[in-house]
Amino acid sequence: MMLTDPAKKYRPFVAVDLPDRKWPSKRIETAPIWCSVDLRDGNQSLIDPMDQERKQRLFDILLSVGFKQIEVGFPSASQTDFDFVRSLIEQDKIPDDVTIQVLTQARPHLIERTFEALKGAKNAIVHVYNATDPMFRRVVFNVDKTECIQIAVDATAQIRDLMTANPSTNWTFQYSPELFTTTEMDFAVEIVEAVMETFGPSVDNRMIVNLPATVEVATPNNYADQIEWFCRHIKNRDHLIVSVHPHNDRGTGVAAAELTLMAGADRVEGTLFGNGERTGNVDIVTLAMNMYTQGVNPALDFSNITPIMREVEYCNQLPVHPRHPYVGDLVFTAFSGSHQDAIKKGMADRRANPDAVWDVPYLPIDPLDVGRSYEAVIRVNSQSGKGGVSYLLEQEHGIELPRRLSIEFSQVVQEVAERTGREITSQMIYQAFADEYLEQRSPFALVNHRLSSEPDSPRVTLDAVVEQNGERQALNGEGNGPLAAFVKALAAAGHDVEIIDYHEHARGQGADAEAIAYVEVRIDGKAVFGVGTDESITSASMKGVLSAINRHHSTQPAAANVTAETLG
Amino acid sequence: MMLTDPAKKYRPFVAVDLPDRKWPSKRIETAPIWCSVDLRDGNQSLIDPMDQERKQRLFDILLSVGFKQIEVGFPSASQTDFDFVRSLIEQDKIPDDVTIQVLTQARPHLIERTFEALKGAKNAIVHVYNATDPMFRRVVFNVDKTECIQIAVDATAQIRDLMTANPSTNWTFQYSPELFTTTEMDFAVEIVEAVMETFGPSVDNRMIVNLPATVEVATPNNYADQIEWFCRHIKNRDHLIVSVHPHNDRGTGVAAAELTLMAGADRVEGTLFGNGERTGNVDIVTLAMNMYTQGVNPALDFSNITPIMREVEYCNQLPVHPRHPYVGDLVFTAFSGSHQDAIKKGMADRRANPDAVWDVPYLPIDPLDVGRSYEAVIRVNSQSGKGGVSYLLEQEHGIELPRRLSIEFSQVVQEVAERTGREITSQMIYQAFADEYLEQRSPFALVNHRLSSEPDSPRVTLDAVVEQNGERQALNGEGNGPLAAFVKALAAAGHDVEIIDYHEHARGQGADAEAIAYVEVRIDGKAVFGVGTDESITSASMKGVLSAINRHHSTQPAAANVTAETLG
Repeated sequence: MMLTDPAKKYRPFVAVDLPDRKWPSKRIETAPIWCSVDLRDGNQSLIDPMDQERKQRLFDILLSVGFKQIEVGFPSASQTDFDFVRSLIEQDKIPDDVTIQVLTQARPHLIERTFEALKGAKNAIVHVYNATDPMFRRVVFNVDKTECIQIAVDATAQIRDLMTANPSTNWTFQYSPELFTTTEMDFAVEIVEAVMETFGPSVDNRMIVNLPATVEVATPNNYADQIEWFCRHIKNRDHLIVSVHPHNDRGTGVAAAELTLMAGADRVEGTLFGNGERTGNVDIVTLAMNMYTQGVNPALDFSNITPIMREVEYCNQLPVHPRHPYVGDLVFTAFSGSHQDAIKKGMADRRANPDAVWDVPYLPIDPLDVGRSYEAVIRVNSQSGKGGVSYLLEQEHGIELPRRLSIEFSQVVQEVAERTGREITSQMIYQAFADEYLEQRSPFALVNHRLSSEPDSPRVTLDAVVEQNGERQALNGEGNGPLAAFVKALAAAGHDVEIIDYHEHARGQGADAEAIAYVEVRIDGKAVFGVGTDESITSASMKGVLSAINRHHSTQPAAANVTAETLG
Repeated sequence: MMLTDPAKKYRPFVAVDLPDRKWPSKRIETAPIWCSVDLRDGNQSLIDPMDQERKQRLFDILLSVGFKQIEVGFPSASQTDFDFVRSLIEQDKIPDDVTIQVLTQARPHLIERTFEALKGAKNAIVHVYNATDPMFRRVVFNVDKTECIQIAVDATAQIRDLMTANPSTNWTFQYSPELFTTTEMDFAVEIVEAVMETFGPSVDNRMIVNLPATVEVATPNNYADQIEWFCRHIKNRDHLIVSVHPHNDRGTGVAAAELTLMAGADRVEGTLFGNGERTGNVDIVTLAMNMYTQGVNPALDFSNITPIMREVEYCNQLPVHPRHPYVGDLVFTAFSGSHQDAIKKGMADRRANPDAVWDVPYLPIDPLDVGRSYEAVIRVNSQSGKGGVSYLLEQEHGIELPRRLSIEFSQVVQEVAERTGREITSQMIYQAFADEYLEQRSPFALVNHRLSSEPDSPRVTLDAVVEQNGERQALNGEGNGPLAAFVKALAAAGHDVEIIDYHEHARGQGADAEAIAYVEVRIDGKAVFGVGTDESITSASMKGVLSAINRHHSTQPAAANVTAETLG
């Protein structure tokens, strides 16, 4: 079993003491300030980091989605990043309402180099960090708390002075106490207050304090508690934009971002589809679309999500998972018959009430709102019941099965599915339908027919030629309509059938339209369906009757032993 | 921009009123009852549902991991599922301490068929559900609340009677009010109490009430509020095992499971790696490992996670994402130099304190605990600094670079990385190291040498033969040791070098060991490193000196203009 007893090797996260927390009663009512870190935290964690071309394409995607703050690199640490920042500025690729952000360590020559990279930028955020986590202080940097604060304060002073010396850029200052979530909360407040005192933000000139969950270490409510605690304890909260930076080591990055927004955060740093170190940064697409489904405008546009995903996959050279919320290939599919049936009914209800609030079973968002289609909603496999099959036949083949026929036919499809063990495509369904009903032309086939009726009378006289086992036979009958007359004519020739039910409708439109007739008849005491198609509505219905008779006569009708009873 | 104004089309989730909620102050201290639904909810959502062979392999994986409750199918709805349940029972494949579970709709002939499927099982859970969500009641089933309760009660009575009539199986009864999270909370309590009254559970014979988030519709704190509310309001809470069944439509399924466990749930239904309808069921692997990292034994064994992942990928024919927590290919990698440096120091600290609680930067879990290796922790690319390169050279090549050499060499690697734009492998690093230092054999190369020294004296006399541009040259020198003597001999031949620093250590062990010497010398006022290897420690150090001289003489030393200053 386990290599190691976890109780000896690991310890529970020590929660902040906040019994009167307020965030669990809040909800997210406005979009936060979004900052993409795709080009920095995302890029630095790629197996193959982006070259200039891929960086430019990703930057363009971020602009098109509507990001106004974009961290574009760590120019003092990488020549590639430096060159990219220069090309953005020198080639005038940054819109006036967009602010680029760059990261730097709190070291003098790196800060110096960072400002070189930013020369000529219209709007820029200088993002400096140092490690405040106690284990980092002890093991990695060997500094005490006072030295740790001094590093942050010195860097802040240098940045403040460089900003003052370069007044043509609209500067914003951002400070991150690194591994905020594992730093002692009172020390986090202490170091941020020292930085604030040095930089001198105000209500009208706020600085950003970014409080990263660099590694996710606890259930997401703990991060929310920490943010609420921090916001309550920090002096001059209104001089700050409080930013969160969740990672996803425990698979709860999205939840952590949501709960911290409820707890008072103003801003979120994350990436498209959650690229980033190890398990990734928080996924801003999911966050934004989660808001959207709650009626909150996220101020980011993912209304055409699939091309965005493909472009990001190209830039990152990493796949988006088929079950990724809102965008994965499988998220607008329903394989289960009961799900499909419910979706079908929900969509019909919505068609009847198109202005109602969205409420369709199993679809938390209208696929159209992210540029996906209803046709993609339903696939069919051996788990499917009647809803999916009917839906596909209707949507893609214009065939609207009557309810009982739909039940009967779903069994035919299920058998095909279980026999092949693979997904059944819409084309396979149509083929199964055609084989089972439309191609039943033996022993009986309709050759031709002639109808005559009197004015002001429903009575119809039918003369029909039918082939039986290759031999032509003339039939004649009279009735209240063509179908009744056809039944009479068949009876006169010794073939007794009784019509139980009948549906017919047009497929296609205009000159290309043809009729499809679904006829349920009783033969020898058994109910059996037949289906016929023809440009003539009468020929279609007669073919439907013959299809039923032929199915009854075939020795192994595929669904002969199936009744609606076994299906539900 | 957005196709639709979300405020008109969507509405915020209406939270349950629970201002005095207790769950946010709780933490998870014991493992819940786990139930795998991989073979049911997971399987029904696959593009290609599993055949018998894949089902059996997945069942075996679930047993090996330690699941004691496994939902194996929906036998009344699918012949494939029915056959699989029969094969498990008839071929005696279910251990005595494992309970299989099957799902059924609340319909008489399906319940009947379900018990046929279970005949002969030792332990079985019969899991019945009906839709209680108001939209389902209205649109999908057209039933009022009374009719909805009657459906549940009738099914419960039938199941109770069939259990009584088949006493050789240890039965457990499970009821799910479908789409619990979107059902009116008071109605959920009402229908569950009606079911309980009919079935008659007790403290000693509990029934399971499963409260599914069939579709995730709100931030995860709402699900927790609902579970706490339900547990407070239901009569005879202690007659129930309260189960949750989270989905992941908003990317917060793991968080929802964790918060509901804090809120009082006893049991979790989910799947391995989060397979399941649409965006998936909750991922039990992540949940279990999250507990593990908090010192809680999850009672599931993922200590060899990679083969489990591969087998599940085969069964589901779906990939696990490279950033999937605890198992993805990228989650134990660190590409950033500062991360790598911190991990290196953290691991060194841990080697010094092997029994301490796990606390290594950026690694929330020891990779060994899931059968991953330290060697896999670090890759190197153009974002990397000194930590990663040094670590790989040490781990894989036995080369322990002195700190300043490590800084110099990281620049060489970074240039290679930026030139190729691709991941640098450990082999490429070694090659770059060999090219830059070990293969510097021109203009000077050591041919042979002879040492002599007097007893009780540190003085050494060295006679060496050195090749210079192909011409052999005899050198002679004396000093306090071989290296000093070699420097003197070089000086006598007109080559002035001064030793600044010197490190040497063995590579490999025993007879195969060789020495590697890192020598920093000053030539013409410049500091330059050289490295030499040889079975003889003296030859290695002399080769190191010659390597430095050769690098100094080469017209384009790759790192000639690099000083420690530019690196940080």
